[in-house]
Amino acid sequence: MQTKRLGRQSVRLKCPPSVVSFACVGGKMEGQGPLASSFDELYPDSFFGAKTWEQGESAMQRMALQRALEKGGLQPEDLDYILAGDLLNQCIGTSFGLRDFRIPFYGLYGACSTMGESIALASLLIDGGFARMAGAMTSSHYCTAERQYRMPVPYGSQRPPTAQWTATAAGCCILGTQGDGPYVTHITCGRIVDKGITDANNMGAAMAPAAYDTLSAHFRETNTTPANYDLILTGDLGQLGHEIVTEFFLQDGIDMRHNYQDCGLLLYDRKKQDMHAGGSGCGCAASVLNGYLLRGMRQKKWNRILFAPTGALLSPTSTFQGESIPSICHAVVFSNEKGAAN
Amino acid sequence: MQTKRLGRQSVRLKCPPSVVSFACVGGKMEGQGPLASSFDELYPDSFFGAKTWEQGESAMQRMALQRALEKGGLQPEDLDYILAGDLLNQCIGTSFGLRDFRIPFYGLYGACSTMGESIALASLLIDGGFARMAGAMTSSHYCTAERQYRMPVPYGSQRPPTAQWTATAAGCCILGTQGDGPYVTHITCGRIVDKGITDANNMGAAMAPAAYDTLSAHFRETNTTPANYDLILTGDLGQLGHEIVTEFFLQDGIDMRHNYQDCGLLLYDRKKQDMHAGGSGCGCAASVLNGYLLRGMRQKKWNRILFAPTGALLSPTSTFQGESIPSICHAVVFSNEKGAAN
Repeated sequence: MQTKRLGRQSVRLKCPPSVVSFACVGGKMEGQGPLASSFDELYPDSFFGAKTWEQGESAMQRMALQRALEKGGLQPEDLDYILAGDLLNQCIGTSFGLRDFRIPFYGLYGACSTMGESIALASLLIDGGFARMAGAMTSSHYCTAERQYRMPVPYGSQRPPTAQWTATAAGCCILGTQGDGPYVTHITCGRIVDKGITDANNMGAAMAPAAYDTLSAHFRETNTTPANYDLILTGDLGQLGHEIVTEFFLQDGIDMRHNYQDCGLLLYDRKKQDMHAGGSGCGCAASVLNGYLLRGMRQKKWNRILFAPTGALLSPTSTFQGESIPSICHAVVFSNEKGAAN
Repeated sequence: MQTKRLGRQSVRLKCPPSVVSFACVGGKMEGQGPLASSFDELYPDSFFGAKTWEQGESAMQRMALQRALEKGGLQPEDLDYILAGDLLNQCIGTSFGLRDFRIPFYGLYGACSTMGESIALASLLIDGGFARMAGAMTSSHYCTAERQYRMPVPYGSQRPPTAQWTATAAGCCILGTQGDGPYVTHITCGRIVDKGITDANNMGAAMAPAAYDTLSAHFRETNTTPANYDLILTGDLGQLGHEIVTEFFLQDGIDMRHNYQDCGLLLYDRKKQDMHAGGSGCGCAASVLNGYLLRGMRQKKWNRILFAPTGALLSPTSTFQGESIPSICHAVVFSNEKGAAN
């Protein structure tokens, strides 16, 4: 039993769960970006057939789950659990999106780390023998996030250069005991890290220390280095956060420059699309993983990736009260080989 | 492996995790109620030594965890994970409350079902061999909840008779592979249930169908009846929801009248304290469990209880948009005997 635990934060899965199916859905900007062809569904407007943006976000989650089920030849009854959450107050994107599926549900709040957190817990439930198949899902929506966290979109507020663009996207990953991979082989659970950053328009800088903390624990406890991975990804640190993480590791003598990317830098063409520091939101890492990355792994473009999305655990209220921004990062290893070396 | 799963929603734990320690903290009203003596700490004001109510809620979680650690002779380093969440937007009660402990953290959002959800997942991680010891925690605060969900308290808005009173309380339960009980023997994971109730001042009625759904699944899949438990508890259905659940089961020929209680009806003296339909909030079930109930079990007042808190997965935004109230209920069995009959 103890052999599964590699350290305080990291676990090696005995029977690595396989990705059974995955899907992602996006909006207009995502459809104009470089990863457009990796989406299962792209909508030309922000409503996704619903009346409000919030209902549109729920519709995205519904579509992502429906598409993932269809692609795997599955019914909702085949899922023993679904683990999901989103950025909206009380996670209504998820609760209304999942309402009609009747799948046993554990609700999560991990902000933009939710794709990592949901895959981690789904994998642990499967490897622990409590589920044969489980779903992991999250979403974000530019318009719902802007009006909740910053300003209503129609105000046309100006955004500083450090600001990022919340992706309008959802991603769903179905994992199971059976399948041909990629497999989830290792999980590193994050701790809350708060280095005192208070600028809610500079999330990359606030979250970078959490990514550094979890990735450091991961390398240490799994006895790996960046060279053991074909690709290492954070979720939505953007340009600035990506630079900070790279710099932190360089100070430790660890060179991340060859294979470290950030989903927020992949999802959009920042030159053409004016996304400032890059993409953000739960849906950013979720759609890049459940499209571009997992498709690429199945095509053997990469055989082993370390996926480590970060979340900023603040709210507008905490910011108004002068608080800094606590953050967290959950890391998951996907490998095309079931029996990983470490 | 498959023998652990009793049905789609229920799991029997192979090595039932033991309650290692528990604690609860409350405010002024909780200190004037009939369960006052079961609290570890009671505060005479709503601030808990902090400057704002939200910071006060974080302080409550910090105190509850600290007390639970102390009572168990434990350090934060002894916990492999903590699973927690609360009602505040983006769960800031939890993220700021846990910030300084540096414990690997999975954030949850289950509204007022969070005490059930966190114990369920902590138990599954322990039984799956991924943790030796894990914490489960949640909180709510009357003043933070009122201004977020309804009206700022100083407005003095009148509350309808169906309204409930959000408890100002936090509870923490530490579970582990070793200990003398009570033990978590069974878990039934809830599904989202929405019967179309739209009145956010009548949460009991909105959540009762979720309690009925999960408890029905529990009885069916574990092959038990109410007679197998010394006590069955919902979290905060209040007077009305308690009646609805009792009535639903009577229609199925199942008599819950002998041993079914609701934490929201236990926490306050409704005649003297004017709490309308009863107590509510994550902190209601959390403080009743991690005080009155677990103390009572250790004193052999009850030997087997079925704890089933419900959560309403709405937000003010969903209500403004005319949506109904999706709800969920997670059930957990605590037993003084490790090897349960079913």
